[in-house]
Parts: sequence; C-alpha cells; structure tokens
Amino acid sequence: MSAVPQVRLEEQASTRRRLYQLLDTSHADDRTGLIVDRVLILLITGSIVAVILESIPALEVAYADVFYWIEVLTVAVFTVEYFLRIWCAIDSEEFADSGMSPAEIRLRFVFSPYAIIDLLAILPFYLLIGGVLESADMRFLRCIRLLRILKLTRYSSAFDMLAITCRENTRPLAAAFFILITVMLLAASGMYFFERNAQPVAFGSIPAAMWWAVSTLTTVGYGDVTPITSGGKLFGAVITVIGVGMVALPTGILASGYATQAKFRSKQYQQQADQALADGVISQREASHLEKLRKDLSLGKHTASQILSKAQVSRALSPDTHDSTCPNCGAPLALD
Amino acid sequence: MSAVPQVRLEEQASTRRRLYQLLDTSHADDRTGLIVDRVLILLITGSIVAVILESIPALEVAYADVFYWIEVLTVAVFTVEYFLRIWCAIDSEEFADSGMSPAEIRLRFVFSPYAIIDLLAILPFYLLIGGVLESADMRFLRCIRLLRILKLTRYSSAFDMLAITCRENTRPLAAAFFILITVMLLAASGMYFFERNAQPVAFGSIPAAMWWAVSTLTTVGYGDVTPITSGGKLFGAVITVIGVGMVALPTGILASGYATQAKFRSKQYQQQADQALADGVISQREASHLEKLRKDLSLGKHTASQILSKAQVSRALSPDTHDSTCPNCGAPLALD
Amino acid sequence: MSAVPQVRLEEQASTRRRLYQLLDTSHADDRTGLIVDRVLILLITGSIVAVILESIPALEVAYADVFYWIEVLTVAVFTVEYFLRIWCAIDSEEFADSGMSPAEIRLRFVFSPYAIIDLLAILPFYLLIGGVLESADMRFLRCIRLLRILKLTRYSSAFDMLAITCRENTRPLAAAFFILITVMLLAASGMYFFERNAQPVAFGSIPAAMWWAVSTLTTVGYGDVTPITSGGKLFGAVITVIGVGMVALPTGILASGYATQAKFRSKQYQQQADQALADGVISQREASHLEKLRKDLSLGKHTASQILSKAQVSRALSPDTHDSTCPNCGAPLALD
Amino acid sequence: MSAVPQVRLEEQASTRRRLYQLLDTSHADDRTGLIVDRVLILLITGSIVAVILESIPALEVAYADVFYWIEVLTVAVFTVEYFLRIWCAIDSEEFADSGMSPAEIRLRFVFSPYAIIDLLAILPFYLLIGGVLESADMRFLRCIRLLRILKLTRYSSAFDMLAITCRENTRPLAAAFFILITVMLLAASGMYFFERNAQPVAFGSIPAAMWWAVSTLTTVGYGDVTPITSGGKLFGAVITVIGVGMVALPTGILASGYATQAKFRSKQYQQQADQALADGVISQREASHLEKLRKDLSLGKHTASQILSKAQVSRALSPDTHDSTCPNCGAPLALD
Repeated sequence: MSAVPQVRLEEQASTRRRLYQLLDTSHADDRTGLIVDRVLILLITGSIVAVILESIPALEVAYADVFYWIEVLTVAVFTVEYFLRIWCAIDSEEFADSGMSPAEIRLRFVFSPYAIIDLLAILPFYLLIGGVLESADMRFLRCIRLLRILKLTRYSSAFDMLAITCRENTRPLAAAFFILITVMLLAASGMYFFERNAQPVAFGSIPAAMWWAVSTLTTVGYGDVTPITSGGKLFGAVITVIGVGMVALPTGILASGYATQAKFRSKQYQQQADQALADGVISQREASHLEKLRKDLSLGKHTASQILSKAQVSRALSPDTHDSTCPNCGAPLALD
Repeated sequence: MSAVPQVRLEEQASTRRRLYQLLDTSHADDRTGLIVDRVLILLITGSIVAVILESIPALEVAYADVFYWIEVLTVAVFTVEYFLRIWCAIDSEEFADSGMSPAEIRLRFVFSPYAIIDLLAILPFYLLIGGVLESADMRFLRCIRLLRILKLTRYSSAFDMLAITCRENTRPLAAAFFILITVMLLAASGMYFFERNAQPVAFGSIPAAMWWAVSTLTTVGYGDVTPITSGGKLFGAVITVIGVGMVALPTGILASGYATQAKFRSKQYQQQADQALADGVISQREASHLEKLRKDLSLGKHTASQILSKAQVSRALSPDTHDSTCPNCGAPLALD
Repeated sequence: MSAVPQVRLEEQASTRRRLYQLLDTSHADDRTGLIVDRVLILLITGSIVAVILESIPALEVAYADVFYWIEVLTVAVFTVEYFLRIWCAIDSEEFADSGMSPAEIRLRFVFSPYAIIDLLAILPFYLLIGGVLESADMRFLRCIRLLRILKLTRYSSAFDMLAITCRENTRPLAAAFFILITVMLLAASGMYFFERNAQPVAFGSIPAAMWWAVSTLTTVGYGDVTPITSGGKLFGAVITVIGVGMVALPTGILASGYATQAKFRSKQYQQQADQALADGVISQREASHLEKLRKDLSLGKHTASQILSKAQVSRALSPDTHDSTCPNCGAPLALD
Repeated sequence: MSAVPQVRLEEQASTRRRLYQLLDTSHADDRTGLIVDRVLILLITGSIVAVILESIPALEVAYADVFYWIEVLTVAVFTVEYFLRIWCAIDSEEFADSGMSPAEIRLRFVFSPYAIIDLLAILPFYLLIGGVLESADMRFLRCIRLLRILKLTRYSSAFDMLAITCRENTRPLAAAFFILITVMLLAASGMYFFERNAQPVAFGSIPAAMWWAVSTLTTVGYGDVTPITSGGKLFGAVITVIGVGMVALPTGILASGYATQAKFRSKQYQQQADQALADGVISQREASHLEKLRKDLSLGKHTASQILSKAQVSRALSPDTHDSTCPNCGAPLALD
C-alpha cells in the first residue's frame, strides 16, 4: 500500500514538471508549450479588447451578454492558470538549489511581480461576485482589468532587458526625476509670483501653477494655460529653454545604461560563441543553442553574425595560443 | 543556324549585364549609370511635386492637362524601369552563387521591398485605366502615388545604415513601443475614470480618452482635450512626467544601436585601410577604393582620416610584428 | 589651571568631530547619523509641503497659525543646523591637509553651494522679522522658501554624478544652448518679417515673436500663437523641423557625457574590487565596503556583480601574472 | 634707395603679423589680443540687442537717433575689422606651407564661412546707403543684421566640436531628416484623405495638411489644427506614436557621433599628456600647454585629470617598457 502513493507522487511530480515546462516561456522549442503560450496571449489580448470596447456606452448596452461571457471565460482560464502556476512554481530552476520547502517557494512566488499581476487579472471579478465591489465601481474595475495587459510582458525577453536597464539606473533616474520635479516646483512658484494677479484661476496658487509647469517642462505644452504678462512670458521662456535640458537628462541616462546592457549581452553571446567554437566547428545543436540565446539576449542577426565571425577570425589568427611555447626552452606554456 | 542564336544570347546577356550596371546604384563610378540615376531621381521628385500640387483644388482644375501628361510620362518610364529591373535581376551579385534558376531569381526579386515599391508606383495608374478604381478614389490614389518617394531610398547607402540599426533592435524597440502603448492604455482608462462625468464627449470611453493619452505621452500635447477636474489634472500631471521616460526609452535604444553600427562600420573601414597599407603605401586605386567605401559606410572625412592615420602609426611602430625576432640573437619572439 | 581648558578644548573638539559625523551624509553606517539625516529630510519635505499648501488662498486663511508655527520650527532647526555645520566644517576631510586656519576653512565653507542653500532657507524669515521685507512680498518669499528643496540634494550621491556630468560638459552644453538661442532669434526675426502685418500683436516686434520661437524650437508648442500667412507657415514648418535637431544636440552631449562618467565610475569600482581580491577572497568588511562604494557610485547591482565576476575570472586565469616564469625552466617571462 | 622700402616692407609684415595675433582667437594668452576679443564681443552683442530693441515700434520712434549711431559705429568697426582680417589672412598658419600667393590666400579667405558672416554684418548698411535697398525693406534688413550673432561663434572652440559632429554625420542626419519628411508627406496625404471633407480649409490639400503633419511629427503639437473624424483621429494617433521614433533617430545619431568626437578628443589630450610625461614630470610650461589644450578640446577638468592620472599610473607600472630586454640574451629590445 505504500508503493502506490509513491508512484502516484512520482506521477504527480512528473505531471507538474511537464506543466511547468508548458507554462514557462523559456522552453520555446516545446511545441505544445508554444501552443499554450499562443492561446493565453490570444485570450489576454481578446480580454483587453473586450474591456476597451465595453467602455463605449453604445456597445456596452448592445453587447452586454457577449462582454459578460468573455469576462467569465477569461477569468475562469486565468484562475486555473494562476493556481497551476503556484502549484508548479517549485519546479522553477530559480529555486532549484535554494533548499527552501515547497510551501516557502510557493509563498515567494505568490509575492513575485508576475504572480501579483496574475492575481490582479482575476481578483476584481471575484470581489464583484462576492459583493465587496459594486457595479457602481464599474469604471474603476475596468482600469484594474486593463492591467491584464501586463501579463503579456512575460512572453518577451526584450522586456527583461529594458527592465534591467531601468533597475540598474534607478538612482540616477530617480535623481533626474527629482531634479525635474524641483525645477517644476520652482517654475510653478515663479509663475505664481508673476501671473497671480493677471490670471487668478490658472496661477492662483502653487499647485494650480504646477499644471502649467508640468506641461511646459515635459515639452508637452497643451497651451490651455499660458503666461500673459511680460514678466511671466520672459520667465516662462527661460523655463521652457531649461526644459530641453530636463528632458535630455533621463534620455542620456537611459541611452548610456542601455548601451552598457547591450555590451554585457554581446559579451555573453561572445563567450558562448567562443565555447561553441572551442572544437573548431559549430555543430547543428550549438547553432540552434546560439540562435535561442541570440533571441533571449535581444541581439540582432547582423550583430550576432559579426560577433561569430570575429570569434572565428581570432581563432584562425591564433591557432595555437593555448600551446604556445617558452622562447627559451621550447616547453609548452600552459599559463595562458 | 545554331550559332546565330548563341551569339544573340550572348549579346543579349551582355546587354543585360550592362543594363544592370546602369540601373544598380552601387556602380557609382560609371558615368552613364550616374546620368541614369539622376534622370530617375529627377523624375521621381518631379512626379511627387506634381502629385502634391495637384491636390490643391485651384491648380487641379487649371493645370489638369499638365498633371495628366506628367503622370503618363512618369508611369511610362517607371513601367519600363520596373520590367528592365526584373529582366536583369539575374545579374545581381546577391544571387550569383545561389544556384537558383533565372525564373526563381526574378520571382524573388519581384517580392523584394524595392520591387514592391516600384510596383506601387505604377499600379494605381493601370488600375484606374482598367476601370478597377474610379476617379472618385482620387484622394486614395494620391496617397498611393506619394509612396513613390520611397523609390529615392535606393540612392543613398545612409538609409541602409538606419534600416539596419532599426532592424537589429527590432525586439527592444517593439518592447519599448509596447510599453508606450500599455502606459497609454492605462493612462486613458485612468482619465476615463476621473473625467468621464465632467467631459462625457472627450473622455466618455477608453478609446475616446486614448486621443488625449496619445497626444500627452508622446509629448505632442495638442491641448484640444485636457483634464479639468482636480483628480484628472493630478493624474494627468503624473502621466505627463512619466511620458518623458517613455520617449527617452526608444531614443536610448536607437542611440545605443546606432553607436554599435557606427563602430562596426569604423572597423570595416579600418580592416580595408590595414589591407591597403599592407604594402606600406596607399596607391591611387586603393585611395579611391577607400573613398568609395567611406561614402558607402557613411563615415565622416575626419573620422576616416583618424582611422587611416592610426593605422599608419600602428604600422610604423610595429613594422614587422608577425615575424619579430630579437635584434641581438635573432631568436623569434613568439610570445607577443 | 592650565590643564582644565586644555581638557575642555579636547572635549569640545571631540564633540565637534562627533557632530560632524552625525551631519555628514557619507557616514551612512552610523545609526544616530542616519536618524539625524531622516529627521532633517522629513523637516525639509514638511516645510516645502507647507509652503505649497499655504499658497492656496483658502488654506492660507484657515490654517494661518499652523503654517506660522511650522515655519518658526523649521527655521529654528535649520538655523541651529546652519551654525553647527559652520562650526564643525573644520573637521571635513576635504580641508584636512590644506593647512588653512579654522577661520579660513569656515569662511570657505560659508561660500560653498550647500551653505548658501542652507542660508537661503532661513534668511527670508529673519529679513521679514527684521522688517527688511514686508508681508506684501509674501509671494516672493514663498519662491525663496521653496529653494529649501535644494537642501535635499545633499542626501544622495546620484546628484553628484549628474552635477559632474553637466559640469564636465559645460562648454559644449553652453555652445548647444547658444546655438538654440541663435536659431530662436533668427526664427523670431524671420517670423516678424512674415507675420508682422497679419498679426501685429503676436509678431509686432522681434521680442514678441520670440515667444513663438521659444515655444516652437523647444518642441513645447503651446499653440497660443501660430503663423497664419502662407509665407509664415512655410517658414514656421522649416524652423519646426530644425527644432528636432536643436533638441537632439544637448541630449546627445548629455548622453555621451553621462556614459563617460558611468565608465569612470565602473573603473573606480573595478580597481577597488581588484584590490579587495588581491588576497584571493572578499572578506565581510571588504564586501560591505564595496557595497557602500557601489551605492556611492550609483552603480546597479547587476553591473557591480558583472564587474566583480570579471575581476574574479581574470584573477583565476592569471594567478601570478606579475612574476610569471616559464613553468619548465623557471626563466622569467618579462615580455608579457 | 632700395634699402628703405625693404625696411618698410619688413615693418609692414611685422605689424601685420602682430595684428593677426591680436585678431586670431587662438592666441588666448596674449593680453592685448584678449582685450580686442572682448571689445569685439561686446560690440557684436550690443549691436544685436540694438537691432532687437529697434524692432519694438515704441522704442524705434523714441530712440531713432541712438539706434542710428549705434549702427554707424558698429558698421564702421566691423568694416575696419573685415579689411584688416583680409589683409593679415596671409599670416594664418593654415596657409603657411600651401605655396599660394598672398592674393590667392586672401581670395580664399574672402570665401570662407567666417569672412562671409563678417561681410553680411556690414553689407546691408552700405546697400541702404547706396540706395540699392530702401528703408521699406527695414524688416528684411533687421533679419540680415541679426546674422551678426554668428560672428560670436568664432570665440569658442566648443562650436567647432559641435560643427564637426554634425559634419561627420551629414549623410545619416540627412537620411534621418529625409525619412522624417517622407513620413510627414505620407501623414499629410493620409490626413488629407480622412479629413478633407470634414475640414476643407485645414486639410483641403496635401500642402495644407503638411502644417498639421509637421507640428505633429516633430512633437511640437500646436493644436491649432487637429483631426475630428474617427478615421482621422485613429490615423493621427498612429502617426503621433511613430513621431516618437522620428525624433529619436537624429538624437541617436548625434549622441553616437558626439561620443565618437569626445573619444577622439580624449585621445588627443592623452597623447599630449603622455608626451609631457615622457621625462617623468610635467613642467610649468607643459601644464599651461595642457590646460590650454583641455579648453580647446572642450574637455572637463575632471575628465582631464582622470586621463592625466591614468597616464601617470601606466608610466609608474611599466617604468622600463622602453628598455625591455630579450628573455634569451638579455639584450635590450628596441622594437617596442
């Protein structure tokens, strides 16, 4: 009687592992996995389109049923997906050697950004069903439902790269935005000084003047509120020119940060390429591995082939670097 | 009787090859080819100017005849050019060693971007003549005809460089634009939440609110629709500040990608410069070859001369690096 | 009797030194110092929020007392802070070996940017109390008080990095802004030429037309003034396209300058990492030192770990490069 | 009798050479030269301010005399400066070894950009005096007079750097602007298709619709003309998003190009620093030479000191690179 549950546990574990592979997006060579991915992507997209269309009053009334059933179907699938992901989270390679118990791993997963997004995709529906939220909050619910679009970020490694670029430069970016907001505040208080009497509604207080400052210093420039006094126009012109620099700062930080990331990724690819070339040829398996890596690293084909050809050339130029000999005694030098 | 067609075939082939050289823009040192290029560029430009002017109602009536004959002439030349390009596509170096049959090569060429642009330049005219389109579709026809401007991209290699930069960074650029659209959607749904009751026309549905979100997050800021409630203004201000980052992301990607391409091109030039310098001097022929390469690679004169002088200096410093021997005992120094 | 003052002086010096450590933000591992920092940050933020809210007429009347006492408290603390900073300025490492007298050091400190900001934070209050300024200048006073926000820049090293980036590129940035203003001036005079008769108010003089030029060339585009004549629209369109380049110039300079700074900082971290690795392992103390350095240099965790792992790899590959000998004959290989 | 003119010629030549040094901005260590520079800069600035103020109708009438005499004085000095510059152009180092005759050199100088700007600064006055232009063209004259601001670009080497960056990237920048204009044209023709019937004035022809396209794709967004049909709004939104990429392209090119120039300049400084360090110490003369070079190259102080300290470190680490010996026979290796 003890053998049966053991087998069952093993069966269960293998089912779970298979499921993990199906849901995990990095197993892109898995055919069934690809189909699962596409069905989910389609469902997410469809659900978002439905939420958007439902916000149009005419359509909301005419197709109330259709929207309702799309929502029910979507939430049903997403709920199943959510719990399956929690169940098989323990097969993630990320936690493979962490020595944590399955419960701990699952708890950690539940609080990971992706799991929170998954929860937000289904929670509003249950809160509505459970009576916590009322239909009156419909507009708020729609905003929450639209967050489902974030579920799509799981399906492209290019987002990781942008996310890493932003995270690695959090401090300078935060500083740049703090400077932007400081200049906005000073601009608003200056404009409040110059225009308060002339335009008591638009510039009657510093928070009111902030609307102008925000729209000007981001170079958006709605033009619904503009200075009319000479002093205000002169001050406004100076602030506007400074605005160019304000916008340039985060752009410069991101450009530099992205270039750094791109270089890291090129090097990662190069190392793998050098390894694949260690035996002189790139086998079919190595080639497909490199191609997958190229996509994961968001490298362009041209860039990748440049790296590859450089690796080949450097191998060709130094055919026996690794067995260079001492110029003195002729013995091989393993030190290199 | 068998010899004559053979000679004819050969004559035909040589005519075709000559024609290919005339039409291909990379044979820039060919005088007749240059004239052909300029005549075609002039015709394309003239045709576009005519389409633009024709859209002005007053001119359309007054010069109907002139516009008609410009169109007929343009289409006639472009049609001949289109079929000649298909005919001599088999002389392209691109397919030289592909082992494809002439028909296959021509079919491939027909579906290449440049050939599709060429077809779009003439197709509307024949559809109109053939009665498929009616004069009522005139405005649509004008839009299609304006696509002729894309025929000009064939005549400068600088476009290739920009195209490669974009293509190499397709995935991160797509991710950046996806993030932009996601933020737009969330901004629109937020504004729909705050402003719907106050401005039921401009923010009555999420698609309606998108117009504001698009114009704000791209920092265009028409100002035809702006929030008026306090909540909406506060939310709008936050979104506007985020917009600065949204615009910075693709700029950073393109800046980094373009720098990578520029470095590749500098290296390509450097390799050719090193080769040209292998014999110690740069002959007249090598110089003109390098100058052509410089233009093809869109390198500046200053940058190119910097690379050249560096190559010369490094040669001067290590006159025979590869077979360096100790000047004293004559023993080879392979360790370098 | 001579010993007592000596002891007192020593006590005083040690109190001063301790105080310096509490106020100086770079002693971040000091618990009490951290608390002092946070209290001051809270007070600055609170004071700014109060100034902003006070500018709203309704709140100004209703909470006049609250605002008054917040101001008194704030100024009191900032005044004490200001004089304490002057007092213990002589313990700054910056002047440790300068050989200047305490009075000289304090005078220098008084004219440093941070001390001027600190003075500006309290001066308006005393000027008002002293009757130099009158309550009628209230709006002006508020603008000055908002400058207190600059006191916050002391608390993050990320500002230093941005400040250095801007200072290192002062000349090209100034040149870019000079070009921007030149193009604005020429655009304004051109628009004045085209639109003066059609719109005598908005384009009646070059200074008047500057308002349009500034809002256009910075891509803000309020739209309160736009050209209406054909000539003006054509000229305006050309200027608008040129505006794209004008904005791109400072962005390019800052992006390049920031990348240079980022590289310098990576190298600084790398050197410290190499030093920490000199004995083969990174001790607890070295690790915490590196972590502090990482934050000071505004390096991302990912970037820092990449540098560390590279340093480890290069150590592993060349365990004793500097005294490498032929493993066979023992002869030193100095040629490397 | 033959000796006297000889002496006179020599006197004349030495006067000319001295004059050249006074006018040439690169002899910045020359005290009198600095004063000449400052007087001219003051005169240019004053003249521009006068032209701007004169365009204000009220001031034009009230201070007609003042403006007239400022103009006469300015033109008088600029005319003398112009002819002196032509006269002593032959002392320019640029043409020192060109083997051209003085007349040839002066003719070349007359057609150089700076000389043309100098001519434009004085020509309008003489054309007005000579009756070629009439006072009726006053507004046009003012635009031309404002070009005097370009005379200021001679006085900072930072402009050279920006000019070189733009010139080195002429082809990609031109391609980027061609793409921008192409997209504008297609956007205008698309909007003409959608909005023509709804807004026959603003979108009645492709040139009319261009006004909207230009203001949208440069992200200026005046908002004086916006689409109102659903099709137009959808098309406009897509175009607006594309506009983000359009603006990012030239920014990316300039950022990459500027970084390349900055690197070249750092290397130039480094070479001079290495040379100055060749004897182990940096003498007073070398230091002032390096400081002048640093300013000419628009390098920041921080960057320069980083390069210097790196050069010193690399010297310290390899104290005898130049007299390294063969590991075999111990004889010095001059090859390095």
